[in-house]
Amino acid sequence: MSESKRQNFTMLCDYYELTMANGYFKAGMADGITYFDMFFRNIPDGGGFAICAGLEQLIEYIKNLKFTDEDIEYLRSKGIFDEEFLEGLKTFKFTGDIYAIEEGTPIFPGEPIITVRAPAAEAQFIETYLLLAINHQSLIATKANRIVRASKGRAVAEFGSRRAQGADGAYLGARAAYIGGVNATACTISDRDFGVPATGTMAHAWVQMFDSEYEAFKTYCEIYPTNATLLVDTYNTLKSGVPNAIKVFKEVLLPKGITKCAIRLDSGDIAYISKKARQMLDEAGLTECKIVASNSLDEEIILALIRQGAEIDSFGVGERLITSKSTPVFGGVYKLCAREMPDGTIQPKIKISENAAKITNPHYKKVYRLYDKENGKAIADYIALYDEVIDENEPLELFDPEHTWKRKTITNFTVRELQVPVFIGGECVYTSPSVAEIRDYCLKEVDTLWDEVKRFQNPHNYYVDLSQKLWDIKHDLLRKASEQ
Amino acid sequence: MSESKRQNFTMLCDYYELTMANGYFKAGMADGITYFDMFFRNIPDGGGFAICAGLEQLIEYIKNLKFTDEDIEYLRSKGIFDEEFLEGLKTFKFTGDIYAIEEGTPIFPGEPIITVRAPAAEAQFIETYLLLAINHQSLIATKANRIVRASKGRAVAEFGSRRAQGADGAYLGARAAYIGGVNATACTISDRDFGVPATGTMAHAWVQMFDSEYEAFKTYCEIYPTNATLLVDTYNTLKSGVPNAIKVFKEVLLPKGITKCAIRLDSGDIAYISKKARQMLDEAGLTECKIVASNSLDEEIILALIRQGAEIDSFGVGERLITSKSTPVFGGVYKLCAREMPDGTIQPKIKISENAAKITNPHYKKVYRLYDKENGKAIADYIALYDEVIDENEPLELFDPEHTWKRKTITNFTVRELQVPVFIGGECVYTSPSVAEIRDYCLKEVDTLWDEVKRFQNPHNYYVDLSQKLWDIKHDLLRKASEQ
Repeated sequence: MSESKRQNFTMLCDYYELTMANGYFKAGMADGITYFDMFFRNIPDGGGFAICAGLEQLIEYIKNLKFTDEDIEYLRSKGIFDEEFLEGLKTFKFTGDIYAIEEGTPIFPGEPIITVRAPAAEAQFIETYLLLAINHQSLIATKANRIVRASKGRAVAEFGSRRAQGADGAYLGARAAYIGGVNATACTISDRDFGVPATGTMAHAWVQMFDSEYEAFKTYCEIYPTNATLLVDTYNTLKSGVPNAIKVFKEVLLPKGITKCAIRLDSGDIAYISKKARQMLDEAGLTECKIVASNSLDEEIILALIRQGAEIDSFGVGERLITSKSTPVFGGVYKLCAREMPDGTIQPKIKISENAAKITNPHYKKVYRLYDKENGKAIADYIALYDEVIDENEPLELFDPEHTWKRKTITNFTVRELQVPVFIGGECVYTSPSVAEIRDYCLKEVDTLWDEVKRFQNPHNYYVDLSQKLWDIKHDLLRKASEQ
Repeated sequence: MSESKRQNFTMLCDYYELTMANGYFKAGMADGITYFDMFFRNIPDGGGFAICAGLEQLIEYIKNLKFTDEDIEYLRSKGIFDEEFLEGLKTFKFTGDIYAIEEGTPIFPGEPIITVRAPAAEAQFIETYLLLAINHQSLIATKANRIVRASKGRAVAEFGSRRAQGADGAYLGARAAYIGGVNATACTISDRDFGVPATGTMAHAWVQMFDSEYEAFKTYCEIYPTNATLLVDTYNTLKSGVPNAIKVFKEVLLPKGITKCAIRLDSGDIAYISKKARQMLDEAGLTECKIVASNSLDEEIILALIRQGAEIDSFGVGERLITSKSTPVFGGVYKLCAREMPDGTIQPKIKISENAAKITNPHYKKVYRLYDKENGKAIADYIALYDEVIDENEPLELFDPEHTWKRKTITNFTVRELQVPVFIGGECVYTSPSVAEIRDYCLKEVDTLWDEVKRFQNPHNYYVDLSQKLWDIKHDLLRKASEQ
């Protein structure tokens, strides 16, 4: 929202980012250049890929970074911050570089989604909001894309604002859901600000407000003849709701030559009721009347409804989309991967863990997507050191970074670097596409994935490989650490 | 936040609220007085009660309601709104009454948490934000209270901002978690604005930034000698992290006479490692060194850790609290329960459903909590018509509204009306207590519940009963509806 874009989220940071920043300052390390990667480890809902989103809000956040006098006074009152450090906050801004995978791109575990190169205090400071922005919208875009794929071409509308986890959950959730492929939202402000088409039918209250259901439907159709979706389950869907809807459509719409209309089912056995309702509508000659279904839907229920032959033309999906109910957390993390030494060389850093999956990929890196030249399908992602060059004209050997004996050589491929420069030297060098453009791009990019990656049950693990040089550096660091 | 308080969320509404409002306007019904109840049906996580929160943000929203010229221009561009209606939006404000259960109160399914009495268009319009505000914070306050009760007196800090569903998810989530009983948050802005004490230790990056773990710890303790919580799992907790922490505590803190310090465990087998670490700390004479645990905790894991005798003094709880991961939706709904007729009489309204649990309680009502005079424990909640009087000096017969033969008569009780007036005639007549006061009140109110209601497994279903008069009206309406 224009409001929100101007909002200053500087203080939405973990307190330790401030204590660490003050610590780096006092240790004379605040200006040392560091490299951080944001990446994630697990795909929500056991899916084969996630969808990246939230970059536009991250950019706004970085642009708007500013400690107010009130903020600094508040921090001073804590009595633990150095006075010179507090003074420095007055002019604090982000001066580094940010590279990011663009919104709408399918992403995979372990690869750097965002890479930050900046003085230690700055790079550390932006951790919380960076993660929050990308985690939240990637979660919802990923869920939305699952629901859209399950719906097999039927329209999907996002209806969940009232159950969202806070205002941004609703507002930006609708944005992310649109990126993931839904067709519309009930959230008006997301239409106003992002052009996510707003849609809506009526609440049960509208029907209850009148002396009869018939009267409620008739009044609505008279006011919105070209946009009449009647909610038919306030009293009894098949005995009262659908017959009244048919009566009103015939009395009010057909005389005007309007055949486009709809009913909404919001309770009961949707599979059964939708088939009965379709039959009643067809028998009344209302073959163009659409049936919209809502009520605690998600991709699993939608798949089941379609399997059962439910007669549903479009879905309204609420709480299970806007909170990604089945997996409500996108576990992106932000880890130091290198620091620059006074002589300009880059010293790779690794985070060890007893859980092998939690060991990080060290060094300043780039991530590439390799496509099959013949069919345009994505073959694998390839993480290399920042200065490695991939030549499309040479065969490239890929290997499984855990089972290194599994190797294959690819030829006839194209390479795309996934991250784009977003900030350079603190200046924003990137313009976000419109949300509609991001959505189109997303749907196109998902099409480059094999069906095996896109299936819901036991999807194929898409390959995310390391270059030999990166693998060697990582294993050197691991060996040295275990020898300590 | 001061920013957020000023934020205008008027357009954060479901689009159908605008089309219905326009519809009421065109049907000449916009000014008819209506009554809506906000209530919920299921307690998250199968618990015995929920905690109400979010009222302060709802109040701010109502106060700030205002359509800007830009909003109206946007709506005009839709081409479906009446010009006179759009003109009217310029001066739109809430003119009705709102009664609400205060934040921090234990609440139960089916009872009116918030009751709105207002002209139809206004009462309908505020639905989305009202639900969003109360659903979100009640969800998190309820979860936090579960986690706090599981921790049995150990401190709990909220650490989840980075995994929250949007900025408000973090910011107001920390507020709600504090109401539910946590002791602190990592979210700085929630300290600045709500006084939720901010806390923080260090990230793995701090440790990695130095040439050795020892050096990282030493530098930190020199800078923050009275506030040193060292993260000990960057390399190897028991072989490197704890020994280095002990060494530094002895070298830097003890000579200054400081014995208060802490280590944080963030991975591995916390139960086992905490016991080993405790032993090592004690053997080194650091008996006052506390052990903080984090890493995907929730009430179940905390209960299990305590059962296993883990040596943990406080918990940092992240994503599973800030998203209420196991039940990420609080299913509050907002339903028409009555409308005023031109002669001033109140006509009760009911929403029928094939699912009996979804049938609403009609009419303008009040909700009371009955306490045992002897021990102060809550006996039951009692929903009555707005004009019924309960006399503490007379025996009161309670009955199960579904199994009406189950009856009991109580005496020696006190009565408290749960809802308080918040807006009267559009004017706010309520001042929110400070968040710390709400938290104190919450913990006190939870104490009035029997242990049987508070237990995690199969809690006792607290009684929410209807007065005989209300029950009769409800069943008359149901009978009439089924006869139609």
